[in-house]
Amino acid sequence: MKCGKQTYKIDKPVFLSETYTVGGPYEAKSNFGTFFDCVMDDDLWGCNSHEKTEINMQKHCIDGVMQKANIGASDVDCLIGGDLINQIVPSSFSAREFEIPFLGLYNACATFAESLGLGALCMQNGMNAVICTASSHYATAERQYRYPLELGTQPTPASQWTVTAAGSVLLRIQDEEKPHISHVTFGKVVDLKCTDANNMGAAMAPAACDTILTHLRDTGRTPSDYDMIVTGDLGRFGMDTLRFLAKQEGIRLEDNLNDCGAMIYATEQKAGQGGSGAGCSAAVYCAYLHKLLCQDKWKRLLFVPTGALLSKASSLQGESIPAIAHAICIEK
Amino acid sequence: MKCGKQTYKIDKPVFLSETYTVGGPYEAKSNFGTFFDCVMDDDLWGCNSHEKTEINMQKHCIDGVMQKANIGASDVDCLIGGDLINQIVPSSFSAREFEIPFLGLYNACATFAESLGLGALCMQNGMNAVICTASSHYATAERQYRYPLELGTQPTPASQWTVTAAGSVLLRIQDEEKPHISHVTFGKVVDLKCTDANNMGAAMAPAACDTILTHLRDTGRTPSDYDMIVTGDLGRFGMDTLRFLAKQEGIRLEDNLNDCGAMIYATEQKAGQGGSGAGCSAAVYCAYLHKLLCQDKWKRLLFVPTGALLSKASSLQGESIPAIAHAICIEK
Repeated sequence: MKCGKQTYKIDKPVFLSETYTVGGPYEAKSNFGTFFDCVMDDDLWGCNSHEKTEINMQKHCIDGVMQKANIGASDVDCLIGGDLINQIVPSSFSAREFEIPFLGLYNACATFAESLGLGALCMQNGMNAVICTASSHYATAERQYRYPLELGTQPTPASQWTVTAAGSVLLRIQDEEKPHISHVTFGKVVDLKCTDANNMGAAMAPAACDTILTHLRDTGRTPSDYDMIVTGDLGRFGMDTLRFLAKQEGIRLEDNLNDCGAMIYATEQKAGQGGSGAGCSAAVYCAYLHKLLCQDKWKRLLFVPTGALLSKASSLQGESIPAIAHAICIEK
Repeated sequence: MKCGKQTYKIDKPVFLSETYTVGGPYEAKSNFGTFFDCVMDDDLWGCNSHEKTEINMQKHCIDGVMQKANIGASDVDCLIGGDLINQIVPSSFSAREFEIPFLGLYNACATFAESLGLGALCMQNGMNAVICTASSHYATAERQYRYPLELGTQPTPASQWTVTAAGSVLLRIQDEEKPHISHVTFGKVVDLKCTDANNMGAAMAPAACDTILTHLRDTGRTPSDYDMIVTGDLGRFGMDTLRFLAKQEGIRLEDNLNDCGAMIYATEQKAGQGGSGAGCSAAVYCAYLHKLLCQDKWKRLLFVPTGALLSKASSLQGESIPAIAHAICIEK
């Protein structure tokens, strides 16, 4: 049911039944290292290219979430997901390993939210089980968006560290004891003309602000109606920017705002403003946030993955960085 | 309502209310040249890069379809679409021009079918108007997937010509006199280990065959239940391959099978096996097939855009070409 301008109340409840995560060796040392279902010994994981590694990470997640739920491919109606790599190769190539229909998405680092939102809506018309997946890999993203790692380029102060991780969640119509998706707010593309491709937080904060404020307006709620509002990968600087922008609109996002990118790495890991990448919000939700909901520590989470929709070519052609954010309200 | 293994009957009818198409100068000379709503004078259309041209083509289509329907951005719940370019820049950057939520997709040249299928399912839960868009541009695709145009590389006999075109369709809950989407069959990723990146027809025909046969099985229909089955961009060779594969499974696809790629270019245009690209099936549906349905020349069309999920990097890394096809049953 539509509710306000951009929000959909999910009429038939869609439960987040199981999750599975794969993390890289650097992520094993992060704050959530002990929560990953599987940790890779090294960045290649037995493959001869990092792209092939990322394919395997997604494949392992999809296999893992099915095993946890004790179901097979024939029980799953659809794989929905994406990643940051050109032509979303990790998602498409992992999907060929399964006899399951595949819907590829691209909303940059907001892809995981897009998959949860679309999954929940598709399940209103007959799908019973959907697996949503997103991933990123530090090595595949750096060489595609920035420079070859071998160049040893220095990160700038505003930069973030692409998380090497993949996360899958199994959505099901029946699993009443698990958290469920109650509302989905699909975001608009917002571009305040930021051009610094090393400052994703600044580019994405306006989109996060727009989507969160729209969600609150559409549902008639305030930030205090949520145990926590968790954005995708704004990082520390981007989260401050979001607080500033929301305050200007009369909304205070204080103690109950956090960000997957700002949360993931330990201070001593020196990962700039924090983590980023489509796998960041996917893995933090699947490895950590989901458990807090399952353990009844939170009753209502607003999960808002954010994405910067640039490409290497768009930046080289002098374009600014449009961004997007989708909000998924998850309740227990 | 789920029907069989991979097919969804669209319970609340979703009407294809209006369409709009933009074509390039080479497409203006094609069999459907006179059917385009707008034809570009040249390949750049006043822009300083072909990527920017493709952004403008999509923007023009979205604007055009809203104008035809006499509605504004506030009447549209969602833009759903994609293209072939890295990080789907044409789709994301055109979406920033509209105050409408955006869902970016990537299933290569099957993206338009993916957008129609997802649009129809989303509209079961409260969306009233969705614009589905896909595009491709010969110059942006050639330099991304193959070689710079300036190199003057000779096409191989099995190759196809990327269509410079964009197409948008406005889906609405109410517009009873227009064709509507009755069934959607989402396809699996199929890879028979074809590695020739210049023979997309061979790579995609198995996916088209798998989806069409699944659709027929799921609905209990035969090919003769359709006025026409139109695949996306298999080209002539790919269409022959599809016929061969289907025959092996006991299904005869003869007179009522056609293909957007095989149909679009005139023989004297010498476009290899035919057209390809995400804009091929989008523009052929929006410019031509839709009109045949509106004029009651056809009552039931099975529209099956096909996509090859390769990237330049995947081919360079020795990977074969996985492919996908989604089937949309459109009735009047």
